Amino acid sequence: MTNQSDTTNYLQAFVEGMISSGVEQAVISPGSRSTPLALLLHRQEKITTFVEVDERSAAFFALGLSKASGKPVALLCTSGTAAANYYPAICEANASHIPLIVLTTDRPHELRQVGAPQAMDQFHLFQSHVKEFIEMAIPEGTKAMLDYSYWQGMRVIDTACQTPKGPVHLNFPLREPLLPDLNQALIAEKTTKIVVGKKQLSEDELIKFVDACQGKKGVLVVGGSHTPEEAKVFIELAESLNWPILSDPLANITACGKDSSLIMSYADLFIQEVEMNQSPEVVIRFGMVPISKNTMFWLQSLSETSKIYFVDETGEWQDQLKQTQVAIQAEEQLFAKAIRDRVKIKTTDSWRDQWINWQEITAQQLMKLSEMKTLNETSASILVHKKMAKDGQLFVSNSNAIRFLDRFSSPESNQYQLFGNRGINGIDGIVSTALGMCATHPNRQNVLLIGDLAMYHDMNGLLLAKRYNLPLTIVLLNNNGGGIFSFLSQRQLKSDDFEPIFGTPIDLDFSLVAQLYDAEYTKAESLEQLEQLLEATQTQAKFQLIEVVGDRQENVLLYEKVIGGLTEKLGKK
Amino acid sequence: MTNQSDTTNYLQAFVEGMISSGVEQAVISPGSRSTPLALLLHRQEKITTFVEVDERSAAFFALGLSKASGKPVALLCTSGTAAANYYPAICEANASHIPLIVLTTDRPHELRQVGAPQAMDQFHLFQSHVKEFIEMAIPEGTKAMLDYSYWQGMRVIDTACQTPKGPVHLNFPLREPLLPDLNQALIAEKTTKIVVGKKQLSEDELIKFVDACQGKKGVLVVGGSHTPEEAKVFIELAESLNWPILSDPLANITACGKDSSLIMSYADLFIQEVEMNQSPEVVIRFGMVPISKNTMFWLQSLSETSKIYFVDETGEWQDQLKQTQVAIQAEEQLFAKAIRDRVKIKTTDSWRDQWINWQEITAQQLMKLSEMKTLNETSASILVHKKMAKDGQLFVSNSNAIRFLDRFSSPESNQYQLFGNRGINGIDGIVSTALGMCATHPNRQNVLLIGDLAMYHDMNGLLLAKRYNLPLTIVLLNNNGGGIFSFLSQRQLKSDDFEPIFGTPIDLDFSLVAQLYDAEYTKAESLEQLEQLLEATQTQAKFQLIEVVGDRQENVLLYEKVIGGLTEKLGKK
Repeated sequence: MTNQSDTTNYLQAFVEGMISSGVEQAVISPGSRSTPLALLLHRQEKITTFVEVDERSAAFFALGLSKASGKPVALLCTSGTAAANYYPAICEANASHIPLIVLTTDRPHELRQVGAPQAMDQFHLFQSHVKEFIEMAIPEGTKAMLDYSYWQGMRVIDTACQTPKGPVHLNFPLREPLLPDLNQALIAEKTTKIVVGKKQLSEDELIKFVDACQGKKGVLVVGGSHTPEEAKVFIELAESLNWPILSDPLANITACGKDSSLIMSYADLFIQEVEMNQSPEVVIRFGMVPISKNTMFWLQSLSETSKIYFVDETGEWQDQLKQTQVAIQAEEQLFAKAIRDRVKIKTTDSWRDQWINWQEITAQQLMKLSEMKTLNETSASILVHKKMAKDGQLFVSNSNAIRFLDRFSSPESNQYQLFGNRGINGIDGIVSTALGMCATHPNRQNVLLIGDLAMYHDMNGLLLAKRYNLPLTIVLLNNNGGGIFSFLSQRQLKSDDFEPIFGTPIDLDFSLVAQLYDAEYTKAESLEQLEQLLEATQTQAKFQLIEVVGDRQENVLLYEKVIGGLTEKLGKK
Repeated sequence: MTNQSDTTNYLQAFVEGMISSGVEQAVISPGSRSTPLALLLHRQEKITTFVEVDERSAAFFALGLSKASGKPVALLCTSGTAAANYYPAICEANASHIPLIVLTTDRPHELRQVGAPQAMDQFHLFQSHVKEFIEMAIPEGTKAMLDYSYWQGMRVIDTACQTPKGPVHLNFPLREPLLPDLNQALIAEKTTKIVVGKKQLSEDELIKFVDACQGKKGVLVVGGSHTPEEAKVFIELAESLNWPILSDPLANITACGKDSSLIMSYADLFIQEVEMNQSPEVVIRFGMVPISKNTMFWLQSLSETSKIYFVDETGEWQDQLKQTQVAIQAEEQLFAKAIRDRVKIKTTDSWRDQWINWQEITAQQLMKLSEMKTLNETSASILVHKKMAKDGQLFVSNSNAIRFLDRFSSPESNQYQLFGNRGINGIDGIVSTALGMCATHPNRQNVLLIGDLAMYHDMNGLLLAKRYNLPLTIVLLNNNGGGIFSFLSQRQLKSDDFEPIFGTPIDLDFSLVAQLYDAEYTKAESLEQLEQLLEATQTQAKFQLIEVVGDRQENVLLYEKVIGGLTEKLGKK
C-alpha cells in the first residue's frame, strides 16, 4: 500500500509542477482527506495560502484573487459535499474565463461505493462547467509517477490558462496515512516552460477589414471584462475611426481614466429615445452584448444594411443577437491595435456629433434633477464611481447595482478598474469575490457596491476580511429585498403575490453584521457624508460597511422621471 | 411562439401531477425565469410554500422538511448559478435517500450557447447525484402536451419515492412572457394512482434464515436512519433472539423510548477494551456501518467463523467492511418483523449477560467522573439527549456533536426522534436541515445540537427561522474551531501547522448572530442552568440559541480519561 513518504513526494511534485506554471495563491478549506496537500501548500513559500471554512465562499474568493491578478489560483477541499459547495463559483469561472485550479481529495478506490463516510462520486462532479476533469493516480513514489504528477501539475495549469481560460478539476484519491512527512527534502524544480501563441489575422486580412470600415458611419460596441489599459486601446480604436463607442461597464471604457467625447456612457438612457436618421453602416463588436437592455434592443433593431463584425478570440461566439455577418477569431487587443494603426480615413464628424449631442443632453437632464443631489441608491452609485482613486478597484454586484453604474456613470473619472461576476450574473458569492480582489491589491482603494440580498447571500465571506485584515469598503444599497423585480414585469403583480416571492424583505440589521465581523459601520445620512467617507478611503483603507438606505419604489420612479424627461427632449415617441 | 395561457396551463398541469403523487411542500428561491412556476406553487392551496433567498439553505431546508415528513418536497429556483447552490444538499439527499424534487428553470433553446445573461448548461447539472434528469419540453397548450406535463409531474415523484429514494431533477425551458395568467381556470385533477410493492422474502427463505440464526450467539447491528417505531421493531427482533444490539445514533434505538438491557449504547467506549472470549457466531446487519469507529474495527476484526448477513432493500450494498456472506435485499421492517415472529429458540442468557455487564460497568465509570457533573461539551450533549420530550425532534450535527451522542447516550430516555445528515456527513447545511425538521412539526420540542464551524457554515439558514417563526432551540457547542481534528492524527502537528489549517478559530460572537436573526440568546454557565433551559423547551418552544463554551483539548482529555478507566476495569491490553 501507499506509504507516507510516497504520498508526500508525489504531491510535492504536483505542487512544484503547479508553481512552474504560475500558481502563486491557494485557498484551502479544512478537512481530513485533504491533509497532505493542505500542509504542503501551507508550507510552500512560493504559494500564499488562505483558509476559509465555507467552501462556497472559498471558491468565490479564489475567483476574485484570479480576476484581480490575472493568474491561475488553486482551490483545495476534502471529500464529499465540501466539493459541491464550489459549484456556483466554478460555473461563474467557466462562463467568465477565470483559471481556477480545483483540487478535490477523495477516498481511494477500495473505499468507494461501499458507504464509507464522507464519500461520494466525484468523477466529473462539475459536469460541463470545467475545461477538463482529471482523476489522478493513487500516489506512488517511483520516478515515473513523480514525473507524471509534476507534469500533470504543470500541464493542467496551462490548460486552464489557454484561451478561453477556465476552471479545471483534479480529483486526488488518497490513502491513509494522511499526514505527510514534512521533513522530507523537497524535490528539485524542473525547468520545462510553455510559450503560448495568440490568434492573429494576416496583414492581408487586416487591410481588407480596415478598407471595409474606415470612413463609414460606424459604432464600436465593447462587451466583456477589460483592464483600463485594454480599455484605452478600444478608445484609441474608436478615435482613429471617429466612431462613438458603446460599452459594458466591466469593459472599463468609462472608468479607464482616458477622456473622450466618443464614450457614450449614458447610452442605456438615451438610445431608445432618440430619432435616428440613419442606421450605422458598420458595427464592430468585441465580446458579449453589453448589459444595457436598451442597447441590446437597439442593436437588434438594426436593419440588414448594417454590416456587423464580431471579434472574439475564444471562438465561442456568444452572440445572443445572432446577426453577426463576419465572426473574427483573433486576440482582441492585438486586433484592435492593428486596426487602430492602419486606419487612414476618419469618418465625417457629423456622424459622431449627433451621438455626442445625445450624450450631452442626457448629462444636462441628469444634472437638473434634484434627486441626484440627495442621498438615494442612484446618487450613491454615481458618487462611488466618481470617488474612485487612481488605480482603485471597484467590485459591483449584480441586479440593480451594476445597472445603476451602467446607466448613470459619467465618463470623467480617475483610472480605476471595475470588476463584477458577469459570466452568469449570480448574486451568490459577490462578497467573497470582492474580498479576493481586495486581497490581491490590499494597498489600493478597494470598494464593493452591493445590494442587501446579495450581501446576505454571501455574508459568510466576511470572515475572510476579518481573518486576513482585508481593507474593503462595502457600500450597501439596502432597499430591504429584491429591488430588481420592481423594474421587471413582476411589478404588475398584487402585493400579496409580489412581496413574499419577489420583494422578499429580509429585515436584517446590518450594523450587527458589521459588528460580528469587526467591520466599522456607518449609516450614511447624506450625500455629503457619503462623499467624505469615500474620499477617506482613497488614502486610508479599512474594512468598513457603509449602509445607504434605499427604497425599491423610489428607484423606479427616479428612472422613469429620467426617461420621461429624455423622451420630451430627444423627440421620439 | 409560446403564449401566456399555454405556459400557465402547461405548468399548472405539472403542479397538479406533483400533487397527485404526494407533494405537499415546496421551497422557492426568488428569481425571474422561475416566475410562473413560483406563482403557481404559491397560489396552490394544497402546497405549503417557503421562500429562501440563499438556494443552498433552501435546498437543505427542503431536505429537512422531507426527512421529518417522509414525503417528497419540491425545490424551485431560477436559471444559472442559483441551481448550482443546490448541489451540496442534492448530494446529501442522494446518499441518504431523500426524495427532493429539484425544479430548475432555464432559457429556451434559442437563448442557449449565445451568451444570454444568467444562462449556463443545466443539462445533467447534478451529474450522478440525482436518480433522473429530465429536460422538459417547451410549454405548449395542446391536450397532448398538458397530459405529458401532468404525467411527468406524477411519474417523477414516483421515481423519487421508489427504493432507494432520492432526488430527481427537472429542467424547464421557459419563454417570455413569464407572468402566468393567474385568473385562468385550473384544470381538473386526474385520478391516476400508483401503488408500490416492497421486496419481501418467501416463507421458505424466511424459515431458512431463522434456522440459521436462532439459538446462536449473535449480535444485531443497526445502521441507517430510522423512526422510533421502526427502532422498536429492531429491539423486538433482538429480544426474540436474546442478542445484544449495536446501533448508529440515527437508528434511534437509544432514543425510541423502549427500554431494553440489550441496547449497547456505550459500545463505542467499551467494545475495543473488553476481552472477548468468543466471536459471535452470527451477525445480522441492517444498513450502513454505525458511526462508531470502534464498532467498525471490532466488526472488521471478526474471524470468518462469524456468519455475517447484510439486510438492505436498496440493493446498493453499502458495506465498507466487505465481509458480508449473505446480502439480503428485502424491505428492512417487513423482514425484521417476519423474523421476530418466527424465532422460537432464544440464545442462552450467558452470551448476552457479558454484554450487559460491559454496558453497566461503562455506565458506572461515567457516573463516577466529576467532569460529567460540570458543564462541558460532553456533559451538555448527554443532557440534551436526556431532556428530549416525548415525540420531540433532535437534529445533531456532524463531526463531534454526533460522536458525543453516540458515545455517551444512556438508553433510558423518552421516545424522541434523532435526525442528522449522515449520507455524506458534511457540516454544510445543518442549520437549514434542522429548521426544515422543525417546520414540519413546529408544535413539538425541536432541538439542534451543533458545533461552531457548522453553525457558521450555514448561518444563512437562520433567516428561515426568523421569517417563518420556527421555534428551534439551538445548543451551540462552541470550542472556537474544528474540534474533530483534535481527535484525529492531525493533532500530532505543531501548532503553527495545526491552528491555521485545522484548528481554524473563527472568533465569532454568537450573541450577535442571535440578535441579527431575532433569536433569544443565553450563554449557559452551569449544567443546572442548561437543564432548566432544556426543560423549558419541552413545554414552551421558541427560537433560541444556547451557547456552551467548550475547549477542544478538554474534550480529548475527558475521552482519554474515560477510555483509560475502562481499560483498567475491563482488563484488556
